[in-house]
Parts: sequence; C-alpha cells; structure tokens
Amino acid sequence: MNRTEISSLGEFGLIKHLTKDFEKKNSSTVLGVGDDAAIMDYKEKQVLVTTDLLLEGIHFDLVYVPLMHLGYKSAVVNFSDIYAMNGFPKQITVSLGVSKRFSVEDIEELYAGIKLACDKYGVDLVGGDTSASATGLTISITCIGEGEKGKISQRSGAKNTDLICVSGDLGAAYMGLLLLEREKKVFSGDESAQPDFAGKEYLIERQLKPEARKDIVESLARINVVPTSMMDISDGLSSELLHICKQSKVGCRVYEDRIPIDYQTAVMAEEFNMNLTTAALNGGEDYELLFTVPLEMNDVFQNLPGIKVIGHITDESLGSCIITRDGQEIELKAQGWNSLK
Amino acid sequence: MNRTEISSLGEFGLIKHLTKDFEKKNSSTVLGVGDDAAIMDYKEKQVLVTTDLLLEGIHFDLVYVPLMHLGYKSAVVNFSDIYAMNGFPKQITVSLGVSKRFSVEDIEELYAGIKLACDKYGVDLVGGDTSASATGLTISITCIGEGEKGKISQRSGAKNTDLICVSGDLGAAYMGLLLLEREKKVFSGDESAQPDFAGKEYLIERQLKPEARKDIVESLARINVVPTSMMDISDGLSSELLHICKQSKVGCRVYEDRIPIDYQTAVMAEEFNMNLTTAALNGGEDYELLFTVPLEMNDVFQNLPGIKVIGHITDESLGSCIITRDGQEIELKAQGWNSLK
Repeated sequence: MNRTEISSLGEFGLIKHLTKDFEKKNSSTVLGVGDDAAIMDYKEKQVLVTTDLLLEGIHFDLVYVPLMHLGYKSAVVNFSDIYAMNGFPKQITVSLGVSKRFSVEDIEELYAGIKLACDKYGVDLVGGDTSASATGLTISITCIGEGEKGKISQRSGAKNTDLICVSGDLGAAYMGLLLLEREKKVFSGDESAQPDFAGKEYLIERQLKPEARKDIVESLARINVVPTSMMDISDGLSSELLHICKQSKVGCRVYEDRIPIDYQTAVMAEEFNMNLTTAALNGGEDYELLFTVPLEMNDVFQNLPGIKVIGHITDESLGSCIITRDGQEIELKAQGWNSLK
Repeated sequence: MNRTEISSLGEFGLIKHLTKDFEKKNSSTVLGVGDDAAIMDYKEKQVLVTTDLLLEGIHFDLVYVPLMHLGYKSAVVNFSDIYAMNGFPKQITVSLGVSKRFSVEDIEELYAGIKLACDKYGVDLVGGDTSASATGLTISITCIGEGEKGKISQRSGAKNTDLICVSGDLGAAYMGLLLLEREKKVFSGDESAQPDFAGKEYLIERQLKPEARKDIVESLARINVVPTSMMDISDGLSSELLHICKQSKVGCRVYEDRIPIDYQTAVMAEEFNMNLTTAALNGGEDYELLFTVPLEMNDVFQNLPGIKVIGHITDESLGSCIITRDGQEIELKAQGWNSLK
C-alpha cells in the first residue's frame, strides 16, 4: 500500500482532499467546510448539539480496530446521542490530531468510514480541522441535529408508573470487546495464531460497527409517541437507568427476565464464565435506546417489533432495583464505562 | 496547594463540579450540560458552528502557559471564529482528555479561565465531556453562534475594488511567543534566571490572553455595514488574505506602510533581528479581524477607530501582492502557522 506523508499535503490540502467527496444532503446546511464557521438554518426547529472526544489508547485500540470502522463508529455514536433526544442528526464536524505514524492513506480510511456513516444516516460534514499530534490519534466529533419543539425527549421527564422500554438487545458489544481483547495476539502479528470468531460475528460487529437507532425514532414518530424520557445506552443499562431516575426524581423496577439478550451474547458469557445479567446491565457501547412511555401505551409497546418493555418507573422513595428471576429485589448500581474511575 | 485526584470524583462528578457555577445567559440556550445533547432555539436566526482541537505539545506549552490563561484563550479563539462570520457566539461545549499528571485543582484553573471568557463574552457552556488520556492534555471546544440571515460574512464575498481592512495591530502575539520561548528556562525551574518582560507586557498578553473582536462586530452593526468578506487572523495576515482572494476569486494589493504594528512589536522585532513586516504578515494568533467593504465606504472606514484600511481588492488576474515602502510589488506567500507542514 502506498504511504503518502501528511506533510506533503499540509493541513489545508489534507482537509480539502478528505472532504471533497462529501455531498450536501440537508436543506438546513447552508455552508459547510471551508470558512471560519459552518452556517445552518434550522427555521422553526430546535437545534441539538452533542460532542465526543475519542483518544487512542483510552477509547480505541488500533491493534484490532480498523480505521474505517473507527471512523464509522465515531460518527455513529454521535448520531446516537441526537436520536436519544428524539431528534435527527443533520451535520457533523470532525477534528483530528494525527501523529507522524499515520499516513494520508490511513486518514483516508478513517474518513471513508465517516463518509459511510454520513451517507447512511443522511448527515452533512460541515467542518473540523486536522493538526499534528505528539502521540497517537485524537478524534473530536460534534454533531448537530434537529428536534421539534415540544417533542424532544430529555432524561428528566420520566413519571411514576411509566413503562421502561429498550430497543434491540444488550451486552453484545461488551462481549465483542472481550473477544477482541482475547484474540488481540492474532492482530499483534503472531502469525501462527488465528482469530476464533466463527459463530461470533454478531458480537464483533456490535463492537466494531455499531448502528444508531434511527429506525426506532422514526417508528416512534410514525405512531406519534414522544417518550417521556430517553437516553442511548453507551455506559450500560444500569448506569443509564440511574441517570434517568436521578434526573427525573423517580425510582424504577426492571425485571431480569425481560432484559433482551442475544443468543451469541449468552453463549459468550458462558464461555467467559461471566454472569449474563451483569454483562447486559453493565456492558457498554450497545447504543440501543432506553426510554419511558406512559403506562396506557402498554398494549402498543408490548407488540412493537425491536422494542422490549423491561420494567416501570416508581416513586423516588422506592429506589432503583432489578427484580431477579427468583423474585429478589437488588439495588441497581452503575458499574459502567466510567473511564476516569 | 491541594491536590485532589480526578479519579476521586469520577467523570460525572468532575463535570458536575466544574460546570456548577456557569449561569445561563442566552435565551437561545434551552438545555445545557447533563443530557445526551444540548438544546438550542435560534428561531429566525441562522446557526454558526466552529470547532477547535488543542493538543499539548503542539498548540500549547504548559511550561509557560498558565492553565487559567489556556482556558480563557481556548474559548476566546472559538468566539473569534464566530465573530469572523459577523455573528455572535452563544454556546460552547468543552471536551477534555486529561492524563494522571493533572489534578482536580488544575482542571478547575482551566475552567476558571473558560468561565471568565464565557462571562465576558456572554456565552453559555452547554456540554462536553471529560475523560482520561494516555498522555498530556487535549482540549476540544465547539462554539455555536447566531447570525442574521443575509448578514453573515463569508470568505468568498470580496469584490474587485473593495477596501481591505484590519482591526487592531498585527505581529504582537507572535513576538510574545518568541519572547516566552526565549525565557522558557526561567519557567523550567532555573531559579537564577528571571524573565525579562519589562516594557513587553503587551506582547505577552497578546500571546497568553488574546481577545476576540466582539467590539468590531458591534461597531459594524451600529453603522449598518456587512463586510463583503471577513476572517479572523489566526494563521497570519498573508495566509488569511490568500484564503479570501482564493475563495472570492480576486486578487489584492496591500501596502506595507499601512499594516498596523504596535511600538512594542517593532522594538521586539529589532531585538530579535527580524524583519518587522515579515513578522506582521506571518505571525499568527493575533485574532484580529480582516475584512473587505465596498470602496464607497472609504470615508467611513478611514476614520473608524481601531480599524485600518490596508489595501484593496483587484481583479484575480493581477494576483495578490504587497507594495513595499519603496514601491516594489512582491507576491504574497502564506508562511503562516501550518502545523502540519
């Protein structure tokens, strides 16, 4: 593979080269890359902004994460934060800090992943910068989205008796991470070793190429439901539930046997000799949506494909608990992805 | 001074602690820190977004940059990008990557600087995150601002015969940088050495605590002038002029003897045995505004305090040149701050 030094293009040359194939998709994008700031026109819509900083060695390991996947995931996790407000992502900015280790071709790979995500989710790249870094790769993405006034779901709106719903299944991304870590020696260049991923592709994909639940937000709009509260599950179900309970000043009861878990996740947990519920409660990076809706919508949500009702909101005084299969009440604890702890 | 380990607070605890004193100042800020995304309502205004990634060892050197100044400057340079669109900054998000070297008190200092800037410029902190980093300090700031439809100044609008204007004076921040680099040994702990900054305070301040030209954007609004093009000077006058010329498909003539330079900058250039015009043309980080206005406004702009007319726009075929004091035409070259070159 060719290796073009980034210095041969320079910062402006590189940005131009990387962004030239991105097409404008949204009418709210007035001006994209190339000025002091991007210009957007949201008219009567409200503006949602979220931002993420990803650091090599902390948030990703390039030994087993291909750069194209990293680009895709970096963008998608930001889109997920906008969907989690019941909104739609429309623009992103991408800033990179790149050490000499990386070539133009490497950064092209990263941008190819970002472009794939932007194309799939209908998002415009409108800005960002690229600079040298002393060590490693730093990715900072900001995502701007639209929400309809009065239809944005915050974390603080859950009410006593609301149903607690979750999309998709949980714990798979974490199992994928453990699997990749276990097989890391293969990627490190030990050629005699071969990765053992047969039958575990779903777990790997959930870790390396997660999707944001645009479809769920669209479904909710179709049936004209605005969740009373919503979050995406990036730090683990326990941690996110506790956020909603704290910010809404409520308690909750979730039922262990209702937590949606994929078959491959269960097999893998057994292989790792790990408690499956613990993995599903605390494994992060699923990017599924966790939300609450009024109790009277029970009939609708019990039958909505891809959504599972896992419990209900209670009065704050009752605390936040999980009801185990054998009927025990255990207090929820956040053991999630807190990278500083 | 106390040293509290960041791990004792955790990510959420730290964010809460750091952001608790920030007050909401703008009606466009609907929801700030604490959800998946911030919510803004810009009504009939257009939305401006700019972002900056600052990496230790590349963009700043903590040997001589106090953390409070760094926080202030990190915020202000983003505000400057919004003013450069003829808009007003309203919200920022701040993401930090922090290695174990830094204590809670260090990050408090940084945030104190950010708060000072937000208070002075009337900007709300609405989001961001803090995570561990493998090495050094990483700061990613995104600024959101408002612009009036039809009154936003892009780089691409300069027209033949337009006047070229510059606010303040140029080259001082660069001289401040050279001075700080020279005196670095003092800060490195060589106690016998004392910094020699007497009479050079202006240069140091321009480097460590730059201001964004909100006042100029307000002045322009007051006299009802929308610049045909505008940029802030972060990479040096030459480089920025060439951006405007390229994006506007025009040429330019600027006059060496009209470039505004402070007395201290001139003294320092002599001390460093450096060509003063070269320093003023290529020294970066002045954060002054460079803009163009129609020729018929000559009378107004020749007498506007804090603004200097330095030349005019020409047809593209005439190229971009500086006219020296002795009447020579020299082609402008961008030798600015391109950190990747």
